[in-house]
Amino acid sequence: MNSNFFQPVDAAAVPRFAGLSTFMRLPAVASAEGLDIALVGIPWDGGTTNRAGARHGPREIRNQSSLMRRAHHVSGTEPFSIANVADVGDLSVNPINLLDGLKRIEDGIAAIVAAGAIPLAAGGDHLTTLPVLRSVARNVPVGMVHFDAHSDTNDRYFGDNPYTHGTPFRRAIEEGLLDPKRVVQIGIRGSIYEPNEHDWAVAQGIRIIYMEEFVRRGAASVMEEARGIVGSGPTYVTFDIDCIDPSMAPGTGTPELGGFTTREAQEMVRLLDTVLIVGADVVEVAPPFDLGGMTALAGATMMFELLCVIAGSVAAGRARQA
Amino acid sequence: MNSNFFQPVDAAAVPRFAGLSTFMRLPAVASAEGLDIALVGIPWDGGTTNRAGARHGPREIRNQSSLMRRAHHVSGTEPFSIANVADVGDLSVNPINLLDGLKRIEDGIAAIVAAGAIPLAAGGDHLTTLPVLRSVARNVPVGMVHFDAHSDTNDRYFGDNPYTHGTPFRRAIEEGLLDPKRVVQIGIRGSIYEPNEHDWAVAQGIRIIYMEEFVRRGAASVMEEARGIVGSGPTYVTFDIDCIDPSMAPGTGTPELGGFTTREAQEMVRLLDTVLIVGADVVEVAPPFDLGGMTALAGATMMFELLCVIAGSVAAGRARQA
Amino acid sequence: MNSNFFQPVDAAAVPRFAGLSTFMRLPAVASAEGLDIALVGIPWDGGTTNRAGARHGPREIRNQSSLMRRAHHVSGTEPFSIANVADVGDLSVNPINLLDGLKRIEDGIAAIVAAGAIPLAAGGDHLTTLPVLRSVARNVPVGMVHFDAHSDTNDRYFGDNPYTHGTPFRRAIEEGLLDPKRVVQIGIRGSIYEPNEHDWAVAQGIRIIYMEEFVRRGAASVMEEARGIVGSGPTYVTFDIDCIDPSMAPGTGTPELGGFTTREAQEMVRLLDTVLIVGADVVEVAPPFDLGGMTALAGATMMFELLCVIAGSVAAGRARQA
Amino acid sequence: MNSNFFQPVDAAAVPRFAGLSTFMRLPAVASAEGLDIALVGIPWDGGTTNRAGARHGPREIRNQSSLMRRAHHVSGTEPFSIANVADVGDLSVNPINLLDGLKRIEDGIAAIVAAGAIPLAAGGDHLTTLPVLRSVARNVPVGMVHFDAHSDTNDRYFGDNPYTHGTPFRRAIEEGLLDPKRVVQIGIRGSIYEPNEHDWAVAQGIRIIYMEEFVRRGAASVMEEARGIVGSGPTYVTFDIDCIDPSMAPGTGTPELGGFTTREAQEMVRLLDTVLIVGADVVEVAPPFDLGGMTALAGATMMFELLCVIAGSVAAGRARQA
Amino acid sequence: MNSNFFQPVDAAAVPRFAGLSTFMRLPAVASAEGLDIALVGIPWDGGTTNRAGARHGPREIRNQSSLMRRAHHVSGTEPFSIANVADVGDLSVNPINLLDGLKRIEDGIAAIVAAGAIPLAAGGDHLTTLPVLRSVARNVPVGMVHFDAHSDTNDRYFGDNPYTHGTPFRRAIEEGLLDPKRVVQIGIRGSIYEPNEHDWAVAQGIRIIYMEEFVRRGAASVMEEARGIVGSGPTYVTFDIDCIDPSMAPGTGTPELGGFTTREAQEMVRLLDTVLIVGADVVEVAPPFDLGGMTALAGATMMFELLCVIAGSVAAGRARQA
Amino acid sequence: MNSNFFQPVDAAAVPRFAGLSTFMRLPAVASAEGLDIALVGIPWDGGTTNRAGARHGPREIRNQSSLMRRAHHVSGTEPFSIANVADVGDLSVNPINLLDGLKRIEDGIAAIVAAGAIPLAAGGDHLTTLPVLRSVARNVPVGMVHFDAHSDTNDRYFGDNPYTHGTPFRRAIEEGLLDPKRVVQIGIRGSIYEPNEHDWAVAQGIRIIYMEEFVRRGAASVMEEARGIVGSGPTYVTFDIDCIDPSMAPGTGTPELGGFTTREAQEMVRLLDTVLIVGADVVEVAPPFDLGGMTALAGATMMFELLCVIAGSVAAGRARQA
Repeated sequence: MNSNFFQPVDAAAVPRFAGLSTFMRLPAVASAEGLDIALVGIPWDGGTTNRAGARHGPREIRNQSSLMRRAHHVSGTEPFSIANVADVGDLSVNPINLLDGLKRIEDGIAAIVAAGAIPLAAGGDHLTTLPVLRSVARNVPVGMVHFDAHSDTNDRYFGDNPYTHGTPFRRAIEEGLLDPKRVVQIGIRGSIYEPNEHDWAVAQGIRIIYMEEFVRRGAASVMEEARGIVGSGPTYVTFDIDCIDPSMAPGTGTPELGGFTTREAQEMVRLLDTVLIVGADVVEVAPPFDLGGMTALAGATMMFELLCVIAGSVAAGRARQA
Repeated sequence: MNSNFFQPVDAAAVPRFAGLSTFMRLPAVASAEGLDIALVGIPWDGGTTNRAGARHGPREIRNQSSLMRRAHHVSGTEPFSIANVADVGDLSVNPINLLDGLKRIEDGIAAIVAAGAIPLAAGGDHLTTLPVLRSVARNVPVGMVHFDAHSDTNDRYFGDNPYTHGTPFRRAIEEGLLDPKRVVQIGIRGSIYEPNEHDWAVAQGIRIIYMEEFVRRGAASVMEEARGIVGSGPTYVTFDIDCIDPSMAPGTGTPELGGFTTREAQEMVRLLDTVLIVGADVVEVAPPFDLGGMTALAGATMMFELLCVIAGSVAAGRARQA
Repeated sequence: MNSNFFQPVDAAAVPRFAGLSTFMRLPAVASAEGLDIALVGIPWDGGTTNRAGARHGPREIRNQSSLMRRAHHVSGTEPFSIANVADVGDLSVNPINLLDGLKRIEDGIAAIVAAGAIPLAAGGDHLTTLPVLRSVARNVPVGMVHFDAHSDTNDRYFGDNPYTHGTPFRRAIEEGLLDPKRVVQIGIRGSIYEPNEHDWAVAQGIRIIYMEEFVRRGAASVMEEARGIVGSGPTYVTFDIDCIDPSMAPGTGTPELGGFTTREAQEMVRLLDTVLIVGADVVEVAPPFDLGGMTALAGATMMFELLCVIAGSVAAGRARQA
Repeated sequence: MNSNFFQPVDAAAVPRFAGLSTFMRLPAVASAEGLDIALVGIPWDGGTTNRAGARHGPREIRNQSSLMRRAHHVSGTEPFSIANVADVGDLSVNPINLLDGLKRIEDGIAAIVAAGAIPLAAGGDHLTTLPVLRSVARNVPVGMVHFDAHSDTNDRYFGDNPYTHGTPFRRAIEEGLLDPKRVVQIGIRGSIYEPNEHDWAVAQGIRIIYMEEFVRRGAASVMEEARGIVGSGPTYVTFDIDCIDPSMAPGTGTPELGGFTTREAQEMVRLLDTVLIVGADVVEVAPPFDLGGMTALAGATMMFELLCVIAGSVAAGRARQA
Repeated sequence: MNSNFFQPVDAAAVPRFAGLSTFMRLPAVASAEGLDIALVGIPWDGGTTNRAGARHGPREIRNQSSLMRRAHHVSGTEPFSIANVADVGDLSVNPINLLDGLKRIEDGIAAIVAAGAIPLAAGGDHLTTLPVLRSVARNVPVGMVHFDAHSDTNDRYFGDNPYTHGTPFRRAIEEGLLDPKRVVQIGIRGSIYEPNEHDWAVAQGIRIIYMEEFVRRGAASVMEEARGIVGSGPTYVTFDIDCIDPSMAPGTGTPELGGFTTREAQEMVRLLDTVLIVGADVVEVAPPFDLGGMTALAGATMMFELLCVIAGSVAAGRARQA
Repeated sequence: MNSNFFQPVDAAAVPRFAGLSTFMRLPAVASAEGLDIALVGIPWDGGTTNRAGARHGPREIRNQSSLMRRAHHVSGTEPFSIANVADVGDLSVNPINLLDGLKRIEDGIAAIVAAGAIPLAAGGDHLTTLPVLRSVARNVPVGMVHFDAHSDTNDRYFGDNPYTHGTPFRRAIEEGLLDPKRVVQIGIRGSIYEPNEHDWAVAQGIRIIYMEEFVRRGAASVMEEARGIVGSGPTYVTFDIDCIDPSMAPGTGTPELGGFTTREAQEMVRLLDTVLIVGADVVEVAPPFDLGGMTALAGATMMFELLCVIAGSVAAGRARQA
């Protein structure tokens, strides 16, 4: 362990319900300077078309993340020993002004990236991923592994409005932030507006793996393909909590029956361990619709799973440079 | 698309939380005349022996059905383009008089049938299926695909009372409404009153597929057998929400551990696409015991799944006649 | 009773849980033509700075309004016998675009006003009252009786944003929609940003009656003063549900301890019976934060109380004209 | 203290969450023989026209009654020292057959009365009071102090059905069980079906004290009148939990804003200490609609308040006989 | 059936919501004398390091166990016909004194064992299993089948405290109550304090089957190994409800994503039918964190599953002796 | 305003749901050095005899305190301008060892007192007040204003255990920490173990003002007497949230009907403005039993009310010294 790395509070010394609530019980720091990975909250849901509430996600994910411990029981990874990680707080947001909200998020992530840290964000709704990508992919389009019930590549809402949580990846492709041929969407399901609703996405080169295909093939096969799609280039991972079944993640705005079990989701994220992750998020945890913190716990746990694979990647990179 | 068919409100134009709440956001109409499929509520739970509340089912199923869209993401079916569907409201009920309640439901369904529409009902407890069958099967016994944790073929309760939600199919067979040799029950499980509790049903010819057999064989095999059992004759489909696991459908009166996942349930209903469905229902959604609308969402989604297969059947029938 | 007036469904014939959910179980109509009073939903909370959710208010208020009956037990008023009232549905809204949202609401209310009906609206957050006033007070500034925990006369948020649910009445005065000398705010309380926070409002001429003054004087004295302030001119009544104590109205975004009991609120509204009400609303009912529908029931009941005084005013006006 | 009287479990010895759940932590006994007061559950809501659930009342009232202690802090009464009290369990009920349900309740109470005990019942909906009165008032009409939001003297529902929880006292008067001139109803409020809805009751001689009159006069004045109305004759006390404000008793089927505080209700019941109570009940606690057991706690506490005044009456009678 | 054996109340005669709440609706008895199996509550959570509440477990498990019936639908076992079973109530506990609490539990179980009955306990937190083992394994170390998300073999907490719900099995091995070579832990998962956290347990000879191994192998294979590990010697079965996935058992203190489905858990327990069970428990059901009784229902059902295999074992032993 | 004093985050700049959660949105500091008032959490409920959960109080009170603003709307006090206030975090606690828990709390408060700051604590159960008094009153007995439903002067529980949340003030008097003649208890009510239960307390000189006396006299009269009792000497204020009515503060372990309204409680605390407060707490907020954060909001608001009077006292003292 690098003795200069931040360490979480030990639950065998300080009970989990005590102390200020931060991601993984890590120290709260003022900036991302010196961090390998910056855990950051984006409490904003200005793009939500139906049930808002993801603005409250970061606080509740922090609360539930008090249940995380220091090591991964399968991989043995100790993320806090191999990477410097801390909670950089919440980004500045604007709950009543969509364009200003997007700008603030973009700027906040830009500061993290400029500090040399990888952002691992807790949303917020899925539109937050667009300004995150604007900063993470400022210089070069990235690939993306996208876990979700919805493709989020729609075009316009309520007239001619281009920005909602149903449109971020259409915008991101149009803006050159994503390389659509290096994008894979996994878990898509649920009734759709039109049978050809996903034609645009597919035409761009996005690979959509519907839930039914996942059920047939299993996580190992699907993730082997996903790793092939994103390859060795810089890749963003976005995890919309509604990819999980509503019984396991009820606290979200647009639930769809027949989703992943958390077991399946954990297995998939663990298989990202060879991917060069330049940023990641867990979005659409909406506490006002949650039940007993179940969804926030799922969000916190998926953040921990992502943290372990990112930390492994950081350590591997450091080893290569040494 | 037949331009005269009713269309649901588009959520990209009117948000899901806006407007009057109807099944699938379809127009509310005064009668079933001109409809192919009549979505109808039966807010009655007079047969419930333990936890009442299914009387509130239709209202909450309507609310949650606002999350449905126009097309099925697996089959591509667009039910509202190939069949005329609307919300005909709730049947007249009597919450304090069992026999009058049964009569009103029978009459209400009879009017739908007389109008030439197929009823797709949201209960209500499972006793509501008995008066529905009295109208749907008035002329000829029907087959039945029955998803449930319980066989509902018991005989008497609280002394000599013949009508409860534990007895509808015993009564239906006695009344000649069901052809027991064309009845299959899927998902039966849970502790039982007596080891021989199901002997009567089996003796009539009903095929009971317990949950454990389903787990061994899988949906495809079970539904192949089910389709064989009901054959090409007129068939009723009844979906008791308690066939689903209590973690996914907690809002019901008689939960039993170890049920179907919603994924399994969806797969099974999709495999009904070759069956001649003359009526269907989703029953036992009891909102006072629900958690965050989860059960009502499951009920609404299963209604949409049923709607898609029924609409396909309607369109096929129309094609044959053309 | 005018036999042409719309009548609510009778709960002794059709149970309260049955049938489509409309305000007071009245018919849903397509336009306000022919109505004296139009019950209308404004499912929009685009101005909310903290906990959103009032967008879901109209649906739940409709559900709880099924508990209302035909006559007022104190005044004896039968609103549906002396005025033509119906549910005109929800206004068109835009949940992701604030300015477009305001415009749609203004237009929707304008249509009701143009039809000659008095709008009685269910919000929505308190910013919805601004566009309502833009249509109701298009020609002449109105007076206002304002029940609230907050003055809602702040200026800017999150930088230079002028429109939030904390600013509507500053904007309305600036726009000449309100005559501030005919405005009274009742129930104001809770910690404040600055000791001089209300100076601007008072300087305009608004009379602020803090909760503590109400407690000392009682409803009768306070309302006598309020009636004097608004006088005989056209007056708008806006009822922010957070004027009620959080224990009785928990489902709201900005609760403040020490509020009105519902008993006190009912007494106050009943004392508006001599006021010339040209429009009214009940706002800030936020179902995602509600407990057991308690807040929506309070909202529905306050709508009924308002309806009775407005109907009395309508009938009196009609009598004068006859 | 009579050393033969049953005593509750002491919470300083056995924590409140431990042990089988009985009323007031008293012993469960098989019959009312030897008791002065029989605490009894009537888990039946067959007369409920809207939201059922009072069938679950006795169990949750028992749970919450574990918070009761041995003595009354105002009167100093120690009910278990001056009267023999126990939990006689639940009456036999029939949830699906109204007439059989009424008969079973009548028989169950008859057995308690025959044993010489005063029944103090936990309902159940308010229709349960009718069969209770059939046994308590079998020989002579009784007076009644009736706390409620509703008069419950309606006539017919859903066609020609005479028995619902809205009709028990019309039936009881018709059957000669109540002396209407010795009946007082306190707390009546809420919108009504017709302005003349209570004319029948008033014509029989019932005194209705609406909530607004109570607010003006206060508990002492109202109860002085009430004691005068029932006089020294045998009197039944029925406490519908919906007399309490919905914020304090949300778990009930027909909530009405503006009800009693529990403080007011406690004060009123304490002022019954001079009344000759021959039976009492607390009804309409509907746990499926309750919040955190709040309503059941209110029900349990009101039972304890009633118990103290009944025990005082028992002891006084015993003293007179000695 | 042995006509002297206690029988549960029949739900077709007395509805499930009626009557005093006991385990499986069996009679409550004062001692274990004459019983084969004693159902007992241990309402104590003094060892809980995070979210307390398991003290309320027995009461809610009793409530939900009203849904159990007389026979097992897969094995056909009728436990109440082949073994004498009753509810012996709750053990004496001390919620504020850990060491006294442990002593009281040990004594309470000792009395059951001395009476010749097998204890089947409802906890309580997992530290309760330690004093249970002190009585069950007083004379000879026992084997153990341990279903759990956590190994519970930690050493010290909050300084030098040896007794928490994270340490019972380390203490039990140190005290010679368990034969670690006959102990198998199934379902272990979740982030851990240190990568070598389980080394001590493994070094003692405990076989840990992590969740991921279970997923690969399935219940049949895992349980075959488990039966081999415990062999034919006396064996304790402890079922920590947090082995179940949090979506199915949210009401527990230390939830971990990715757990067993209840279907898998039921299958595993059924495969214990050849094991010589000398005691068993279901622990860590914490009702204050439960959702709609879901976790208590899971606990009650797992108790019923355990009861069926224990009853089978009792009957087999009796047959051998006959 | 002293520009060196800590200021809360401004909700018009950063929305209330954003940022780390601290008391009143103040900075989190590592020690009390330089503070006038230290806001501190004591997440410990080791003395709870019934429903635990107050250990989770500080976290939820922090969350709800985000609704507080900078100034008091009645007194105009700006606490953060006249006193230096910050959040010093949670004290070290031990959830499984009562005596160690008490020692840790005593030490933690001692450090705050040694730093010259006045502790304003969020409990925790009421036993936490005992170790707080051990540090605050180390040198001289203090007076106490005690708002509570219970006297908390019992002696022994579960045998011979002297320390529970029912005994702190008997112990404090025995230890010479309180001057009983300067102690007043306000709001005591609810059924009691024995009629003479409070005799010991009264004999020591404690003045008990039962709820019924408060209702008769009103807050002004009662608080005048209370101020007289504590006089000008150092005084501790302890506010047990269960003094508030259960409908307004359901999230507590031992609710008693008929409590203070929050309006009354606010009025009383405001009348403490002339008292020399040397420490204060708000205890017994138990989030697992709370509804929608209502009780935590009440706790946070009462902390703000206390803060305002303490800050006024601090400023007055500073003025005297200047």
